[in-house]
Amino acid sequence: MKYAVILAGGWGERLWPMSTRERPKQLLELAGEGSLVAQTLARVAPLVTVEGSLVLTGAALRDRMVEELEQIPPARIVGEPVGRNTAPAIALAAHVLVAQDPDAVLTVLPADHVIQNAEAFRRALAVAFDAAESERALVTLGIRPTRPETEYGYVREGEPSGIDGVFEVERFVEKPDRETAARYLLDCGYHWNSGIFIWRADVFLAEVERHLPEVAAALEAVEGEPGTAGFEAGIEQFYRESPGISVDYGVMEKADRVVVVPCEIGWDDVGAWPALARIWPTDEAGNAVEGEAIVLDSEGTVVYSEDGLVAVVGLSDVVVARTAGATLVCPKDRARDVRAVVEELKRRGLVKGK
Amino acid sequence: MKYAVILAGGWGERLWPMSTRERPKQLLELAGEGSLVAQTLARVAPLVTVEGSLVLTGAALRDRMVEELEQIPPARIVGEPVGRNTAPAIALAAHVLVAQDPDAVLTVLPADHVIQNAEAFRRALAVAFDAAESERALVTLGIRPTRPETEYGYVREGEPSGIDGVFEVERFVEKPDRETAARYLLDCGYHWNSGIFIWRADVFLAEVERHLPEVAAALEAVEGEPGTAGFEAGIEQFYRESPGISVDYGVMEKADRVVVVPCEIGWDDVGAWPALARIWPTDEAGNAVEGEAIVLDSEGTVVYSEDGLVAVVGLSDVVVARTAGATLVCPKDRARDVRAVVEELKRRGLVKGK
Repeated sequence: MKYAVILAGGWGERLWPMSTRERPKQLLELAGEGSLVAQTLARVAPLVTVEGSLVLTGAALRDRMVEELEQIPPARIVGEPVGRNTAPAIALAAHVLVAQDPDAVLTVLPADHVIQNAEAFRRALAVAFDAAESERALVTLGIRPTRPETEYGYVREGEPSGIDGVFEVERFVEKPDRETAARYLLDCGYHWNSGIFIWRADVFLAEVERHLPEVAAALEAVEGEPGTAGFEAGIEQFYRESPGISVDYGVMEKADRVVVVPCEIGWDDVGAWPALARIWPTDEAGNAVEGEAIVLDSEGTVVYSEDGLVAVVGLSDVVVARTAGATLVCPKDRARDVRAVVEELKRRGLVKGK
Repeated sequence: MKYAVILAGGWGERLWPMSTRERPKQLLELAGEGSLVAQTLARVAPLVTVEGSLVLTGAALRDRMVEELEQIPPARIVGEPVGRNTAPAIALAAHVLVAQDPDAVLTVLPADHVIQNAEAFRRALAVAFDAAESERALVTLGIRPTRPETEYGYVREGEPSGIDGVFEVERFVEKPDRETAARYLLDCGYHWNSGIFIWRADVFLAEVERHLPEVAAALEAVEGEPGTAGFEAGIEQFYRESPGISVDYGVMEKADRVVVVPCEIGWDDVGAWPALARIWPTDEAGNAVEGEAIVLDSEGTVVYSEDGLVAVVGLSDVVVARTAGATLVCPKDRARDVRAVVEELKRRGLVKGK
């Protein structure tokens, strides 16, 4: 059967102060109706066994996720005691799924992305499930680039595989420089690596044993059904022992058989503030404004207020975001440096966490 | 005897949102201890008869001023039913003072300026009182320019008068362009027109009769002591009938005998946000920060927060100001355009007034 594995850890710190540890990005309603995580589940629900699916989130957020995703049995919403990046989380999910269903096929879905064309997404996903089952491949959804993005990884497609719309992956490319990204934009063979994956649980676990033996070894501690005391103790040990590593670096770039399903689905990872200028409506001057605001003589701004008025005069291509507790002001092209603010907040003890 | 006439109308809208109609600039504590208006009174108190002095403010602010200036008898804090600029307000004060003391000499003090050297101010004021009494002149304090300011009027000094430190006024100059202001900065004969004036009440009223006959005529409605019903009715009529005009344009530029007392007293009119970079302490990068803030990779900013945190990353020479109700963001060199925001707020009904 088919299952969703929703990765709902982290909190989207580059969207601070809209996103916070207590009110993380995946619980925000950034586009469309409902939180990003609720939309993630709703979007995939027609294709998978919802009650058999799994959600992995931070332990502190688990209760909130249980409320938010009421179609998922609470036991299947797993609170990670500590974040270990994507590879261990997905390996744990595959380990659980293969125990309940040796033929389990799963799709890994980040909980905090926007996908504006759900129909096209499900069509691509159906193709990907087919490739994962019939070819025992690791499948990634590749997104047709629409700008020379330097913050994403890319997938270079190779030969067509045996299935329509599926291509061998020639190689993965780390975040490129501007010039390279501009070249990729003109080359139809490059796709953004969406972080949406599809594979059989057993195929993935075999790759983990091969390429991430420490993760595979740590998995041995995990036994029993999610929600049982044994399982909880097992994952405590698993997360303590497992190294932190991304699935892209740890598995995808090294695995035997990786294929890509190119698609155009209105995908955006909403990684940082400038993304909202792509998602929110903009005025004639390209200002994306949400909330009470006065924007005069300014172009290309992203202005957000959930608490009081924001007035911007004579500044272009800036982000101004106001919440009950804080205001952020930075140029759009420095939006990644919001991390530095969050680091300073942690240093001052105003934000908890590492 | 000598009296102070404190002009405490208006609300400093270019300092919005720190300054608002309900909490105007003159009631803020921008530098030193106490509100600007309280400091204005305390600074001049050693030289004048405080209980005979007068304060003119907006009717809506009168009760607040009575609380704030407890040394002044409440009856002598006059609520203007409508603002008519400076000439009518000063004429009204002179009219009241000359009735109680035919030899009254008064100093007109804007309530919302910063003067960092009170001793030097009082020395200059003593010289000015002398010139006002012995020479029956209209006296203005001239401030030695410290930058090529284009937002102030200037006074050009002429020949020395009969008193040490007092000069005839050759002419007044409206706000100059940048190039002219730069020239004035190098020419020791030009001074900023501070808006601080000193004269005999009768001498001023004679000039009003000559140059502002409509104001003089409207004054006829005002009889009796401040605080009496007759007086209140009189000023209602006076403000209704009087034209709105500034004392600079209406009297000073036309009067017979005008002299200037040049001085260096640490004066600033704190007319707009960039002034606070001159008044508040700055860090090595020239950032003036008041309140909880994180300012990274930015120079020459003015950052103010009285409610929550303000984070600024990678932006120079901007103003960011956050209050409980609003956040303002603009470049320092657009700070005068804060007026446009206030106009928009009025249009939306979020700020009352014309």
